[in-house]
Amino acid sequence: MTQATRVHVAVPNAPYDVHVGEGVLQGIAAATAGADRVAVVSDREVCALHGDLRRHGVDAPMLEFDGGESIKTLGVLEEVLDFCAASSLSRSSILVAYGGGTVGDLTGMAASLFKRGLRVIQVPTTLLAQVDASVGGKTAINLAAGKNLAGTFHQPHAVFCDTGLLGTLSEAEYQSGLGEVIKTALIEGEPALAQLESISRDLGARAVTALSDTVARCVTTKARVVVSDPEERGARRSLNLGHTFAHAIEHAAGYGRVPHGIAVAVGLQLAASASERVYASSTDLGERIGRLLSAFGLPADLEELRSRYSLGAALTANALIEGLGHDKKGRVGAPEFVLMRGPGDIELGVMIAEEELRDLLA
Amino acid sequence: MTQATRVHVAVPNAPYDVHVGEGVLQGIAAATAGADRVAVVSDREVCALHGDLRRHGVDAPMLEFDGGESIKTLGVLEEVLDFCAASSLSRSSILVAYGGGTVGDLTGMAASLFKRGLRVIQVPTTLLAQVDASVGGKTAINLAAGKNLAGTFHQPHAVFCDTGLLGTLSEAEYQSGLGEVIKTALIEGEPALAQLESISRDLGARAVTALSDTVARCVTTKARVVVSDPEERGARRSLNLGHTFAHAIEHAAGYGRVPHGIAVAVGLQLAASASERVYASSTDLGERIGRLLSAFGLPADLEELRSRYSLGAALTANALIEGLGHDKKGRVGAPEFVLMRGPGDIELGVMIAEEELRDLLA
Ligand SMILES: NC(=O)c1ccc[n+]([C@@H]2O[C@H](COP(=O)([O-])OP(=O)(O)OC[C@H]3O[C@@H](n4cnc5c(N)ncnc54)[C@H](O)[C@@H]3O)[C@@H](O)[C@H]2O)c1
Ligand SMILES: NC(=O)c1ccc[n+]([C@@H]2O[C@H](COP(=O)([O-])OP(=O)(O)OC[C@H]3O[C@@H](n4cnc5c(N)ncnc54)[C@H](O)[C@@H]3O)[C@@H](O)[C@H]2O)c1
Ligand SMILES: [Zn+2]
Ligand SMILES: [Zn+2]
Repeated sequence: MTQATRVHVAVPNAPYDVHVGEGVLQGIAAATAGADRVAVVSDREVCALHGDLRRHGVDAPMLEFDGGESIKTLGVLEEVLDFCAASSLSRSSILVAYGGGTVGDLTGMAASLFKRGLRVIQVPTTLLAQVDASVGGKTAINLAAGKNLAGTFHQPHAVFCDTGLLGTLSEAEYQSGLGEVIKTALIEGEPALAQLESISRDLGARAVTALSDTVARCVTTKARVVVSDPEERGARRSLNLGHTFAHAIEHAAGYGRVPHGIAVAVGLQLAASASERVYASSTDLGERIGRLLSAFGLPADLEELRSRYSLGAALTANALIEGLGHDKKGRVGAPEFVLMRGPGDIELGVMIAEEELRDLLA
Repeated sequence: MTQATRVHVAVPNAPYDVHVGEGVLQGIAAATAGADRVAVVSDREVCALHGDLRRHGVDAPMLEFDGGESIKTLGVLEEVLDFCAASSLSRSSILVAYGGGTVGDLTGMAASLFKRGLRVIQVPTTLLAQVDASVGGKTAINLAAGKNLAGTFHQPHAVFCDTGLLGTLSEAEYQSGLGEVIKTALIEGEPALAQLESISRDLGARAVTALSDTVARCVTTKARVVVSDPEERGARRSLNLGHTFAHAIEHAAGYGRVPHGIAVAVGLQLAASASERVYASSTDLGERIGRLLSAFGLPADLEELRSRYSLGAALTANALIEGLGHDKKGRVGAPEFVLMRGPGDIELGVMIAEEELRDLLA
């Protein structure tokens, strides 16, 4: 193990630790030792590439799925719940999620429901899941009407972010995680943003230290925000920076066409432009975001996204504005945006005139 | 309105009121007034007999089901969640459950999951749901492996126990509720038991005052227990008095053959006998329970249950002992019982030797 960091998430009633670093997964057997029984839900691809958790001393029933959005349904949730029953889990047992954000969301939801709640340990295996999805206790499945429309708040018992698993991610999946990394630095503030800029080359190359430092830093920021508002009644919505635009992009492109974090990356650029307009101030934020996006090989703006994914016909201003009305996080009515006056200076619930939006999304 | 009682349930974070009495349903429109949107899930039979909630000023989308255990599935839960989406509910909306315990459990679960939780108002229409299921925030659906295996804790926003709805219940459904009424008096203590004995004739006849007094008293007891242990880590398990035996009866008879509260009634009698053996004390509790059961037309003991439901071949001591191993509330391993030294003097987690059980269940 090179460098292991422990981030404490001090949510009331059920505080927990996030273990970050290459090789931290070797601690999982000890973390499950207190349970009367253990069961594991895994991503099949991850098991094929890295072996299943028996390698790390977890001797338990295992259920495997192909990762991806299509497993986040009530039908698959029932399979996981039936698996919990077949594994004779009790409220003193532990369910382990070993995979990306989809396996984590699904398994976390099953853990919150089986016998009205047992402990879940998250072992996120994508960058996106390590820096974002695995921490904070949101679980979800999708409904026909939209993404993440049903779920629970159920904080994990522990999280193991083993950065040693990230080397096998496809470039697109890795970049998708980097979108959320940039978002998190913008929420945290200037020092985090400057630090990210200074290591962007190493991080793009998945260098060991850059990777663990970044995941630890993002988890620390996310933990701070989550602790301030565990059930997303206010402050936690700052984590939606860039997401109102991202959801419009995903909606207009057709869900699944653009990886979520890549839509977020471009959404951050749009949020920076929108902020300049709304606050009538000119900052270098858009430029700095653009440089980071380019350094990571992400599309630097909406135009580049359109051409890279051949979505010129789909991502028109009209289609995007229509998509903004479908944002699942906003209240009823007009879309609300999370904007920034500067790094770390976030404002929630901002409305933007349609005319301005049309200009932005042209 | 004759006599309305308001019972306050002081659970942390989300305290609420239970309104009990004939005609209290006229208060429902005011209770939903604060919501941005409202939607109602109803029992079809109840709407046919008593009209839907538009009669009481709730003008909202409505979804109807035939009540009964068969709606407590993940498939039907998805229908309710899709209905929430189609009704454009937000986290500021209110979902109303208008029916027996099955509609209440299903709708409560949907409310806890849609957008990770919105408010639910329970309007229980069976005696069992008024005195037990609607208060305390347990929600559930069934899995193939067993009853109530998946669910949440989600306290209602308000509960309306309109005793004016209970006149149309079948005798069996009414008696089923009376089983839980006796249980609740035994948990509460001597004054409650004596009071129940004194009004047993009126209550059996569904007299207005006896009914509201009883529902209010049961709700008060249940509220006290729930507040002491909202997520059932200890004390709340006292509400399972009679239930280890009842679940064995339901399991051995085949679920649905014996109404739940009637199995509980006989389970209480068995718990009294078991308590006498375990505590090597002779009380008149078994006799008093037997007199109440008879007064309410309930089977007074296991023998009478067997003959009334022609279950002599199914409810053998062997089958019942096998069924005890299937108790969903007990920890892993041997069944645990809730026993009583006397009214209000409850002990949790008691083990009973198989030999003793064989005698009891002969
Ligand atoms: N709960 C939250 O707070 C939260 C936050 C953000 C996102 N999410 C959810 O997370 C999901 C997206 O997560 P994701 O991007 O991890 O998707 P994912 O789980 O679908 O994983 C993406 C792909 O990577 C593969 N994969 C996983 N680990 C790998 C590894 N180590 N090497 C090679 N391939 C690997 C998977 O098989 C899958 O094909 C979405 O459903 C989103 O809604 C949840
Ligand atoms: N959540 C809890 O704490 C809790 C506690 C106890 C029981 N329960 C659950 O409650 C369920 C049983 O509840 P139930 O006995 O109300 O069953 P139910 O909902 O199936 O109702 C029983 C029958 O009565 C009919 N009905 C309802 N109201 C009526 C009325 N006013 N007049 C005439 N008919 C009417 C229904 O159509 C149904 O056929 C079980 O699923 C059990 O698990 C939950
Ligand atoms: Zn995101
Ligand atoms: Zn019961």
